[in-house]
Amino acid sequence: MSKLSKYSILLDGKSIESKRQEIQEYFHNTFELYERVFEVLRDNDVFYEKSEITRHPMIFYFGHTATFFINKLINMKIISERINPNFESIFAVGVDEMSWDDMDSARYNWPKVEEVREYRKQVKTLVGELIMTLPLSLPISEESEMWIILMGIEHERIHIETSLVLHRQMPLEFVKDSLYFQPCSQSSSAPKNELLEINSADIELGVDKSHKLYGWDNEYGVYKEHINSFKVSKYLVSNGEFMAFVNADGYKNEECWDEEGRKFLEITQAEHPTFWIKKDGVYRYRTLSSEIDMPLDWPVDVNALEAEAYCRYKSLQDGVKYQLPSEAEYRAIYDEVKIEDIPDFDERSANLNFYHYGSSCPVNEFSFVTQKGDTIYDVVGNVWQWSRTPIRAFEGFEVHEAYDDFSVPTFDEKHALILGSSWASSGNLITKNSRYAFRKHFYQNAGFRYVITEDKEENLADIYESDALVSQYCEFQYGETHFGVENFAISTARIASSFATNKGKALDLGCATGRATFELAKEFDSVEGIDFSVRFVGVGAKLKDEGYVAFSVKEEGLLTQNKKVTIEELGYESLSAKVSFWQGDACNLKPNFKGYDLIMATNLIDRLYNPRLFLDTIDERLNEHGILVITSPYTWQESSTAKEFWLGGFTDEEGTEVHTLDTLQKVLADKFELIHTQDLEFVIKETARKYQHTISEVTVWKKK
Amino acid sequence: MSKLSKYSILLDGKSIESKRQEIQEYFHNTFELYERVFEVLRDNDVFYEKSEITRHPMIFYFGHTATFFINKLINMKIISERINPNFESIFAVGVDEMSWDDMDSARYNWPKVEEVREYRKQVKTLVGELIMTLPLSLPISEESEMWIILMGIEHERIHIETSLVLHRQMPLEFVKDSLYFQPCSQSSSAPKNELLEINSADIELGVDKSHKLYGWDNEYGVYKEHINSFKVSKYLVSNGEFMAFVNADGYKNEECWDEEGRKFLEITQAEHPTFWIKKDGVYRYRTLSSEIDMPLDWPVDVNALEAEAYCRYKSLQDGVKYQLPSEAEYRAIYDEVKIEDIPDFDERSANLNFYHYGSSCPVNEFSFVTQKGDTIYDVVGNVWQWSRTPIRAFEGFEVHEAYDDFSVPTFDEKHALILGSSWASSGNLITKNSRYAFRKHFYQNAGFRYVITEDKEENLADIYESDALVSQYCEFQYGETHFGVENFAISTARIASSFATNKGKALDLGCATGRATFELAKEFDSVEGIDFSVRFVGVGAKLKDEGYVAFSVKEEGLLTQNKKVTIEELGYESLSAKVSFWQGDACNLKPNFKGYDLIMATNLIDRLYNPRLFLDTIDERLNEHGILVITSPYTWQESSTAKEFWLGGFTDEEGTEVHTLDTLQKVLADKFELIHTQDLEFVIKETARKYQHTISEVTVWKKK
Repeated sequence: MSKLSKYSILLDGKSIESKRQEIQEYFHNTFELYERVFEVLRDNDVFYEKSEITRHPMIFYFGHTATFFINKLINMKIISERINPNFESIFAVGVDEMSWDDMDSARYNWPKVEEVREYRKQVKTLVGELIMTLPLSLPISEESEMWIILMGIEHERIHIETSLVLHRQMPLEFVKDSLYFQPCSQSSSAPKNELLEINSADIELGVDKSHKLYGWDNEYGVYKEHINSFKVSKYLVSNGEFMAFVNADGYKNEECWDEEGRKFLEITQAEHPTFWIKKDGVYRYRTLSSEIDMPLDWPVDVNALEAEAYCRYKSLQDGVKYQLPSEAEYRAIYDEVKIEDIPDFDERSANLNFYHYGSSCPVNEFSFVTQKGDTIYDVVGNVWQWSRTPIRAFEGFEVHEAYDDFSVPTFDEKHALILGSSWASSGNLITKNSRYAFRKHFYQNAGFRYVITEDKEENLADIYESDALVSQYCEFQYGETHFGVENFAISTARIASSFATNKGKALDLGCATGRATFELAKEFDSVEGIDFSVRFVGVGAKLKDEGYVAFSVKEEGLLTQNKKVTIEELGYESLSAKVSFWQGDACNLKPNFKGYDLIMATNLIDRLYNPRLFLDTIDERLNEHGILVITSPYTWQESSTAKEFWLGGFTDEEGTEVHTLDTLQKVLADKFELIHTQDLEFVIKETARKYQHTISEVTVWKKK
Repeated sequence: MSKLSKYSILLDGKSIESKRQEIQEYFHNTFELYERVFEVLRDNDVFYEKSEITRHPMIFYFGHTATFFINKLINMKIISERINPNFESIFAVGVDEMSWDDMDSARYNWPKVEEVREYRKQVKTLVGELIMTLPLSLPISEESEMWIILMGIEHERIHIETSLVLHRQMPLEFVKDSLYFQPCSQSSSAPKNELLEINSADIELGVDKSHKLYGWDNEYGVYKEHINSFKVSKYLVSNGEFMAFVNADGYKNEECWDEEGRKFLEITQAEHPTFWIKKDGVYRYRTLSSEIDMPLDWPVDVNALEAEAYCRYKSLQDGVKYQLPSEAEYRAIYDEVKIEDIPDFDERSANLNFYHYGSSCPVNEFSFVTQKGDTIYDVVGNVWQWSRTPIRAFEGFEVHEAYDDFSVPTFDEKHALILGSSWASSGNLITKNSRYAFRKHFYQNAGFRYVITEDKEENLADIYESDALVSQYCEFQYGETHFGVENFAISTARIASSFATNKGKALDLGCATGRATFELAKEFDSVEGIDFSVRFVGVGAKLKDEGYVAFSVKEEGLLTQNKKVTIEELGYESLSAKVSFWQGDACNLKPNFKGYDLIMATNLIDRLYNPRLFLDTIDERLNEHGILVITSPYTWQESSTAKEFWLGGFTDEEGTEVHTLDTLQKVLADKFELIHTQDLEFVIKETARKYQHTISEVTVWKKK
């Protein structure tokens, strides 16, 4: 196969101009490769089909990676003009299957494929220009504006792989052969698997900020673990090896599945791996765009639940305990065979980066040699390898502000790390220190290998929110009160409800961790909570779905106190069905958020990048006699809102002081009547001894 | 003259390694040039003499520029080990003649010159190594660790000039000729001055952060002004031209002097410029190290008060109003003659950077041509030119955290800008955008030229504190109370006093804006207030010296409220004589701060870079039965204190939670008895609606 895919660029270098050139080439290579992935779809009609009920139609993904650039550039104030506000709201979010993704596509009028293709061209031109003109010094650091460009490129690299998985999940009649993604043509019987010994080791994971490659936030920090020596399978588990489990009715053997696995079986009624097709009692195999005879020596594609089930099956068979490898054990294997990281990595040595095949290949094709001379296969490439380790933050983890929901929502002990990359991986995905994790029932180009180790299975950690800012808000909304000031979520919801004429549907905009959304549901038929940050709405969603929130309150220095609040304690059991939580941008809300009797915007307007975008059209989302409640301490700051967009807190050209309330009255006067104002205090705990004590102003506006 | 002095380096470039080399060479050139300046002193004994009663002895300045590197590197946590803690406390501060400089040198045992010379070598080696090893990317930005090195170099460049002034002020028998600073040998009669017309212009001052040269914080930001056309003198005012004023008894003509000027005359009894010497009725002239016949065509060296007096004298003579140029008018002249900035600047074209002379030279030697073809002399170089503009912050000004008292204390409407640089200027001083300002009675290598303009004289602005953080503290200590919480400075002083056995001398360590220092003086015979930041102690000193504090309280966004509190309102008139304010580092206090009956450390320990350095020896500064009061909310954070130096707020190796109070008890147990603890709230206003509400812990310790 020709070389389709370039490696990620190095962050350091000597010449600014040649670095711009490298970034430009890497960007174009990525953008074009992504479009080639969509050439697998048979025709434009297929763009409106979904490969799975829980995912968006293909047109969403086609627009999404371009929109991502624009939304991040806007949010980081690198550009100030949108290219297409409508596209940039409907293509904005929706990748991992989280409850707050808005998957009800019927609510949108999806645009034409040609319109999206034209939009992609505009984005390509803009990003290309930015690459040549943004301020740039070397090495490129997280604070650099160019980092946002690299983020957009690496984000698209991820979607290259996940889109290929979605395409592979579509009916065959929706896809067509592509010259760029030709499957491997070799297969024979499966080799018999063996176990190799890996020495004990002190493993250190995580990179520091001086690392020479772009990294997602979850890669930075420090993690140390001593691992005992262990045995590992020489090959990835092949279709042939897995066949014994299927033939032994493994999918029906309850002993092989844990609770999450049994739930998966119940929902899907699965009896074999998803890319196997049973025809006339014989298993055939689905590649990206064709159906072929079962390649017994290729790795089996499974989710983590199926991989774990196989391990339990094999443990029962052999009377020895098999497990998936841990993150640290995998690194020990990686270190044993001394793989060089990008840029010294040799893509010829493994099935990845589209160098060899547009599919998996035999598990005994790409060999690596350990220090003691053993041969092990597919340490990287072919298919990802599920691990038994849930992704967790390394010590020193810091959220990258431009993409604060990349990692944090996955630190929930439910997202398992996948290791080693696949034939469809490229960019950051094939680098040594990248860390990707998915829910265990999720399909990727992923299989597994097994280990025998004395080291323990991973125990689920207590799921306390490790995100300091989110925890602070959890304490604010669900924790104790201080200095005699009432819980703010409760008081705002009570005040807002008292002014509402009708109590059908309410919107809690800037809902943060969701307490006021529940409180409003005591009075309203349904309440939608929206926040810009998935990190925040995840808390409300968890209270609704799992019945509790748990968080760590900072007390002194690094010392914290763990707290857990259940839906029963809160008395919200009966309200869960009435609330829903969504990620959204108040300055560019999706069109379907409308028809409200109450919109409550709490501590929001002084945090928006352009509050006028919110205020100028919010009336259209309210029903007749609808009520708008705005609560804010008017803490304008340039880090949130460029000065030109402030509503108050400055002196105008005539030298008159402009206060926020004056501007609100001017802007809202045509459409609203101001019916009530009051001060309302709130207290946010930072540590056991330090608090923010704020007096917000509540203004209540009735739609004319 | 050989080329003694290199230009400042450019911040950008292509090769990291050659940039390191450039910085190294510039550093060595500066460090060595500074040592050559001290070769002007006749022998080692002279190092212990002062050139003026208000300044330190020379040995201080000799050590100071080296110590500056170490103190800044320590404070910015770039290095963690001091070279010589004693030197680094006694050589730490004292340049501008501020009341909080500690000038009572008798209190120190100054080290030997050879010891300081050896110390300078150690610093040179360390800084040289850092230049080759610190992380470096181009362009070098304010956040870069290398910026601190550049700051140290440019700081030394300033002292090259100011030390040469001090040497020139010493008796002739204390100095000797230097090959490096040979005076000009040309002089004749003074040319007759003329006026040239400069066109009206829209002037824009200030640079942005992408500027290619190192800048002090006061250079960044934006300032725009339209200036009308004006007339300006062709030459700097020469000794010959100024002679008419002296001969007309101008120094005794009250009409020529304003209030500040008359006070200057009263104190100094001056009758002629300070570098003139009257012998047998004839004026002679003092160069750096010799006395010569009056060079009538060289510029007169005067302070701003003398320059203003001359303008008033000439206005009376001619019936036209002469003034000093404003900062913007000076830039108009600079732009008219199209001078290139460093690195394209041509040092041959003016008397500066030690290229031509170690003294002034005739005012008609270095000519510049305006756009309309007029010839004007000494637009830059020869002597600095006093302006009528007090130095002010440009819009967008931000303090550089590593040197927060470089500019802010001079934004007091009393420091006048000097423009254009002198024969002894180099480094940043000769760049286009640098801004230096001195009190009007201060001598530098400065003279003046005059203008006739319709534009107004500068009116003194109301002196409200423009430093946001300092203003916040002023409001905290001198402003209103909120949420019913008592003024914290008053309550801590009351509690501390109530436990003191003897009431001789007290120390208010971390005194901030000084309110508690005054409060303690109600009970104690004398109280010393010390803070790390000159920006803060300046407020207490102003209350003592000028009888008021004035500050701007942030209300909403950029809107502020001005407040002024007088010593009469506070009832502190009788206390002024008992308090004094000093800049000091609690982790490396000067030896003379001792003999206290009370040491109060308020909200200090969790802000120190190494609190153990403070705690381990503080008992030595207390008298028998002395009391130590520590007040803190224990808000440990890595930006102030590296984690390894925290006293609490972490888990130790055995997994036990360590709280600050436990550590305080352990550390202080041998020398102190804990006699009281209590919680004490305080509230700091951030805006009209946002407050910090904190509960500090007060612990009272009695010396055993």
